[in-house]
Amino acid sequence: MPQLNVTGPNSSAEANLAARLALSATTTGGEVMSDVEFFDWLDDRRRRHSQEVRRTTFAELSGWHFAQDSGDLEHHSGRFFAVRGLRVSTDFGPVQEWRQPIIQQPEIGVLGMAVREMGGVLHCLVQAKSEPGNVNGVQLSPTVQATKSNYTRVHGGSAVPYLDCFRGPRARGHRVLADVLQSEQGSWFYCKRNRNMIVEVGPEVEAGEDFCWLTLRQMHMLLRYENLVSMDARTVLSCLPDWHHPSGPGADLLPDVAVRSWITAQQSEREVDAALMPLSKVEGDGWRLAEDRISHERGLFFSIVPVDVVSNRREVASWSQPLLQPHGTGVVAMVVRRIDGVPHCLVHARVEAGYLDVVELGPTVQCTPENYEHLPAGSRPRFLDLVSEARPEQVLFDTVLSEEGGRFLHAQIRYLIVAADDEGPTDVPRDYQWVSLRQLGELLKYSHYLNVQARTLVAALRTVPGIAGPDAGDALGGAAANGGEPRADHR
Amino acid sequence: MPQLNVTGPNSSAEANLAARLALSATTTGGEVMSDVEFFDWLDDRRRRHSQEVRRTTFAELSGWHFAQDSGDLEHHSGRFFAVRGLRVSTDFGPVQEWRQPIIQQPEIGVLGMAVREMGGVLHCLVQAKSEPGNVNGVQLSPTVQATKSNYTRVHGGSAVPYLDCFRGPRARGHRVLADVLQSEQGSWFYCKRNRNMIVEVGPEVEAGEDFCWLTLRQMHMLLRYENLVSMDARTVLSCLPDWHHPSGPGADLLPDVAVRSWITAQQSEREVDAALMPLSKVEGDGWRLAEDRISHERGLFFSIVPVDVVSNRREVASWSQPLLQPHGTGVVAMVVRRIDGVPHCLVHARVEAGYLDVVELGPTVQCTPENYEHLPAGSRPRFLDLVSEARPEQVLFDTVLSEEGGRFLHAQIRYLIVAADDEGPTDVPRDYQWVSLRQLGELLKYSHYLNVQARTLVAALRTVPGIAGPDAGDALGGAAANGGEPRADHR
Repeated sequence: MPQLNVTGPNSSAEANLAARLALSATTTGGEVMSDVEFFDWLDDRRRRHSQEVRRTTFAELSGWHFAQDSGDLEHHSGRFFAVRGLRVSTDFGPVQEWRQPIIQQPEIGVLGMAVREMGGVLHCLVQAKSEPGNVNGVQLSPTVQATKSNYTRVHGGSAVPYLDCFRGPRARGHRVLADVLQSEQGSWFYCKRNRNMIVEVGPEVEAGEDFCWLTLRQMHMLLRYENLVSMDARTVLSCLPDWHHPSGPGADLLPDVAVRSWITAQQSEREVDAALMPLSKVEGDGWRLAEDRISHERGLFFSIVPVDVVSNRREVASWSQPLLQPHGTGVVAMVVRRIDGVPHCLVHARVEAGYLDVVELGPTVQCTPENYEHLPAGSRPRFLDLVSEARPEQVLFDTVLSEEGGRFLHAQIRYLIVAADDEGPTDVPRDYQWVSLRQLGELLKYSHYLNVQARTLVAALRTVPGIAGPDAGDALGGAAANGGEPRADHR
Repeated sequence: MPQLNVTGPNSSAEANLAARLALSATTTGGEVMSDVEFFDWLDDRRRRHSQEVRRTTFAELSGWHFAQDSGDLEHHSGRFFAVRGLRVSTDFGPVQEWRQPIIQQPEIGVLGMAVREMGGVLHCLVQAKSEPGNVNGVQLSPTVQATKSNYTRVHGGSAVPYLDCFRGPRARGHRVLADVLQSEQGSWFYCKRNRNMIVEVGPEVEAGEDFCWLTLRQMHMLLRYENLVSMDARTVLSCLPDWHHPSGPGADLLPDVAVRSWITAQQSEREVDAALMPLSKVEGDGWRLAEDRISHERGLFFSIVPVDVVSNRREVASWSQPLLQPHGTGVVAMVVRRIDGVPHCLVHARVEAGYLDVVELGPTVQCTPENYEHLPAGSRPRFLDLVSEARPEQVLFDTVLSEEGGRFLHAQIRYLIVAADDEGPTDVPRDYQWVSLRQLGELLKYSHYLNVQARTLVAALRTVPGIAGPDAGDALGGAAANGGEPRADHR
């Protein structure tokens, strides 16, 4: 009867957890593996993981076919995912009606990070994992990253290690630190969501081959390296309880209810009608099917490309699959400033056709500049100039990171955090709002409030020296801008 | 620049609001209109609102037609709502695959309650409103109840009174107390959601004809009358901040994160594939189109029926529309008990095909018993026996209430709150969980966690004498069961 495990008030337990997370984020010396040892280990993993990815044609794509009635690209098992058509109409924006290919993956996957106290310091169990779409083979993934097809072994692979930590964790005596469904790219996925879980485990859980224990300080340091911490690891990290502000509302610009009210207003005002349609009907609306790709006639947006993969490290040694290859490098930036001493982010109520509920909060800027070049000047993404013209001392984070390499081919985004000048833009359009970092952490406890790009930037914000401390002398403080720890040289 | 209106910490403002709500829920003597005056006023409204609802045939249904390609029942404007087909498959439950008609209404409506302090006591501005589907014509609705089609006047009606209180309320100096999208019946609506708003206004807002000011105590008293407080008023009331527990987590059975984790697990484990399909393809799968109804061959579930309406009180004097007529009276019950002195509800992680995200929390029991009679005995709804065999002193609330009369014809549900015997059922199935009343209030700040039936019961729970006070001497306390205020004689 686990239901009767009465616990005391949450608040002291929460404060205690916050202190433990803060220690893991700051301490040096208590790591299971030193920074130097980690990079040696990573090099070793990279040498041992050989993976070959080869472009192929749809005709030769083993296990996949275009369905006869719809033209949708599907796996013969009916599982994994499918590439279908989407028809969208909206009542705003420069383009109000379009069709596009989109990935549908109805299964909910588990992205699970195990954490364990070792030598008095919390460590995360990360995995060196290669994905066919990664620019560099191996990246750092969460402990578990599995779709239902993986763990029910539709593909006949081996068991997913550590999955048991995330199935009925409370019954196993593990403590759940976060567990929430979150969306993924709404322009590329139709209603995709994954279960983001963080579970504290005991000494019975040890690091197997390809796994290692890292403190939060180490995770934050590595997040500043190009294409190293995977999208899945970043979204899970963002769902960690906000250890900077464990004690409730502070002096935020808006009360929590007003932030929620603004989100609700944005959701209510935007009308988006998005419905799946046969992929064959998307053709002719700017999209072309060739033998080795589905792509847009103007070379914009993305292509769907078939690949063959041979790996010595995955559950299955070789397979074929389509990948979505975005064109151009995205720019995703959060503009931040202190308001009355409290760090706030300028978030955007963003509509993407694949979101479950029309609007999610995105970063200040999220775009692929090339996709706007054919549109009139007024359609240029707002605040992009502010970001691209920022002086070096305003740039608190600037790293190229990869999106999910299991679905996307070489999808790289330049993630930036930019401190607003002086007072920053205050008279912002209705679909933008200053929301405190604490409030973003609150929203992250619930599903479908922050989009996946904003989640990466919430994780990245925690790497900015002193962002959450008192308002003097940190990177956002102006006087001491770019002070604190030296920035990792990640180029 | 309303963004720069820096406010102090929320917490003292929240505590102050809680005290004002508590006063409104308990005080007698400070009402703008006494209870007796209210019933006179209501009688007067009922006399003045004449409404005639007449069943008709689809052929004679003015302004509506069956679309040629799909057979869907649509309005000629393309607005309002449509009756379409839905194809559902799931991996659990006694019936795993079916088709059914369903109402699609993509527009997000506003359900708004204005509250105002009068004589030192908060009052709600309610409206006496008749709806074609109501069993009794006039019920008490929120201040505003409007779809976008209403307020953009697609039907050419008059302006919606008080709508301005709910459009940009902060800019008008009004205080938002709640503002959240919530779902409605997932078996009857496809992804329907409405904006539930509560806004505190100033003395410039006065009660017009058909409107009156009532305290929370009066609302609670009236909620115990049959078919008086409308579904829309109930769902809005449930979103009021929980004034009993303004100060954060208490001694709940599970920490908040564990409750959210249980919900996430339920969402992840259930696979539901629900997609709209042409209504014409639903026919033959148990559903029959006759000239005056679409109904199930076994007489189960519901029918879609066309009606003509003549009203002297609506924006438009006469119109036609289809309504959904459920068969049988639903039974919806929450089993409650104190755990270590804290009131908890036994909620059910409920799947309905029309929910946006697979699962929402419903009451302990939610069913129409007749719909289960043709299924094997093991399929009888769980906990229904516990509810129907409850002794009178266990029954803390028992009232027949109507669902939304603008869409449903004579849809009545018997709502019950039942105090569990002694310790109550503790070894509950995995899809049930004891969640405290405070935790339900927290979840209600966010979209799509509590279903519409559970929201009615959260509002109803607040009418139970002493439910939120200390654990001695209230209706849940055992010794003083059914004590406190005399129950209204509502039969």
